[in-house]
Amino acid sequence: MKKKPVSIKSIAEHLKISVTTVSFVLNGKGKEKHISDLLIQKVLNYAKEVNYTPNQIAQSLRTGKSNILVFMVEDISNSFFSKLARIIEDIAYSKGYKVIFCSNENNDEKSIELIRLFKFRQVDGFIIVPSPGIKSVIQELLDENIPVVLLDRYFSDLDCNSVVVDNEQATYNAIQHLIDNHFKSIGFITTDSTQTQMTDRRGGYERAIAEAGLVSNVLVIPYVESSAGTSRDSIKKFIIEVENRDAVFFATNYLAQTGLKVLKKNAPHLINKLGMFTFDDNEFFKIHTPTISAVSQPMVEISTEVMKILLPLLQRKEANESPKRVVLQGKLKIRESSLAASN
Amino acid sequence: MKKKPVSIKSIAEHLKISVTTVSFVLNGKGKEKHISDLLIQKVLNYAKEVNYTPNQIAQSLRTGKSNILVFMVEDISNSFFSKLARIIEDIAYSKGYKVIFCSNENNDEKSIELIRLFKFRQVDGFIIVPSPGIKSVIQELLDENIPVVLLDRYFSDLDCNSVVVDNEQATYNAIQHLIDNHFKSIGFITTDSTQTQMTDRRGGYERAIAEAGLVSNVLVIPYVESSAGTSRDSIKKFIIEVENRDAVFFATNYLAQTGLKVLKKNAPHLINKLGMFTFDDNEFFKIHTPTISAVSQPMVEISTEVMKILLPLLQRKEANESPKRVVLQGKLKIRESSLAASN
Repeated sequence: MKKKPVSIKSIAEHLKISVTTVSFVLNGKGKEKHISDLLIQKVLNYAKEVNYTPNQIAQSLRTGKSNILVFMVEDISNSFFSKLARIIEDIAYSKGYKVIFCSNENNDEKSIELIRLFKFRQVDGFIIVPSPGIKSVIQELLDENIPVVLLDRYFSDLDCNSVVVDNEQATYNAIQHLIDNHFKSIGFITTDSTQTQMTDRRGGYERAIAEAGLVSNVLVIPYVESSAGTSRDSIKKFIIEVENRDAVFFATNYLAQTGLKVLKKNAPHLINKLGMFTFDDNEFFKIHTPTISAVSQPMVEISTEVMKILLPLLQRKEANESPKRVVLQGKLKIRESSLAASN
Repeated sequence: MKKKPVSIKSIAEHLKISVTTVSFVLNGKGKEKHISDLLIQKVLNYAKEVNYTPNQIAQSLRTGKSNILVFMVEDISNSFFSKLARIIEDIAYSKGYKVIFCSNENNDEKSIELIRLFKFRQVDGFIIVPSPGIKSVIQELLDENIPVVLLDRYFSDLDCNSVVVDNEQATYNAIQHLIDNHFKSIGFITTDSTQTQMTDRRGGYERAIAEAGLVSNVLVIPYVESSAGTSRDSIKKFIIEVENRDAVFFATNYLAQTGLKVLKKNAPHLINKLGMFTFDDNEFFKIHTPTISAVSQPMVEISTEVMKILLPLLQRKEANESPKRVVLQGKLKIRESSLAASN
């Protein structure tokens, strides 16, 4: 049987006093309304005894505050996003905010549906890894003065807070490192995404290759295939079956994972010979043989910057100041897979 | 400047008709209330033009339905939970439900705070990986007839739906496999958790070891250390500095990760010699050298069973039938690290 929830009304009935009196006491206005200390105590004790908790939805309708933030990522099962989620959750929790997560699968329809849903459920702010086509929906949030910070990627023609890594420079540095280690035929494996984080990585590759007078070799995997793992055949052709290919840069963590599987299965003799570098670090790259070089995004710094932008906005009722665009530097984690010695 | 949200009132003002008329039309009662087709169309067109969306919080207060489910895990950055989250999200989405995630860090205070918060925000149902001391809070949800399914672990003396893996049998089978492969000094590394999933794994180890007439050797790492990674010293002593230790079973994925790091750093010559088996599979175990044997939990089956229990409960208004306790079998993924050949 469904238990009747404890209400102000049922407390009033039990104590044989008016609903108004109970309401004043529970809203901390007992003194102000000249209710006796004895009665105040009696109401508070009984409310505690029956485990009364105010109807927070009604409360949220009054105050407009929920202390809930939404962190919408592309895919919560991608370790880059799940680790970031955990750090942001910890920082927010220490400031009195709960964070809820959801995945948009980089799909606009799903993004929009989720943003609308949470807006109506009156969350206090959004941290969003945006899918490609939701610029206007982000603009709507800004127009309604709802705090938003974009993460990992942004829209160059939208005035919105964002925290990203300098993908172009980090990739350039990694490719430069491979060149310094005498690799000459450096392939680049990426997805067909046209979002900033991916075009910038490719841009960094092209710049380093052009400056060194080398030839650019890019394998573009359709996004749907890249996460589904059915990209093995084309990666196999690109890495193993090209003569003189001596190094490869994986533009995402899951592409590296697929690449390592392909090598393990089809060309184990190449694992220690091929130069390898990947975007996004992972604990397992440190224990792989050889250890895998990676561009590491500064997770704690990213999360801290996001919350540094968001927290003041949450306190304020009035419009955003000019948006902040924070660009952080990725760090090269040089390991065995990219050193000349293994060439 | 904050834009004024579009309301039924502002629509009525603009069209110079009554609020009641607009409300009837937008709630689909225009025909019923004998409002002309022309006026209905006019209201709908204008509502669309100004991007009117009903106040869903008020709607949810009326209907009591939000179509939101909460999946509370121990730690969203643990790949077992983040992968499960993604599968559950996909199944729920296809049934018209959104899933939001949060981590309780296996901490009772945080669990309780989050459960209360979401209860008040009127989510429709809970999937919970419970922290040790929240039995009474789960009981409260059940008393209020709120759909709950426990995952990964349960309370043996609480009548609540749950989906778990037979941790005892799966671990028993894995240890038995190591014994069959002639390992004789098999250590077991676990945490000090007294929750079912951990005590059952240890139980399976002890049973297999006792049946084989071997000696039990268990290293218990405090939970706080095990996830913080400061457990390296004790793991090092346990694996490397014990004479004749020829195999080790890691009771969790992150303990295995720490163990592999310790070996890589301190005793690389042991990596191909020591028998190794771990609970919970991971894509990287397939590309590690040697490949790592693991107990794989059936993620899709777990998620499907959870939703199979939850969905009918979400449709219903009345009390739960007798709770369902689903126990699934873990699968042994036998790889190089546990075979006699590598001994």
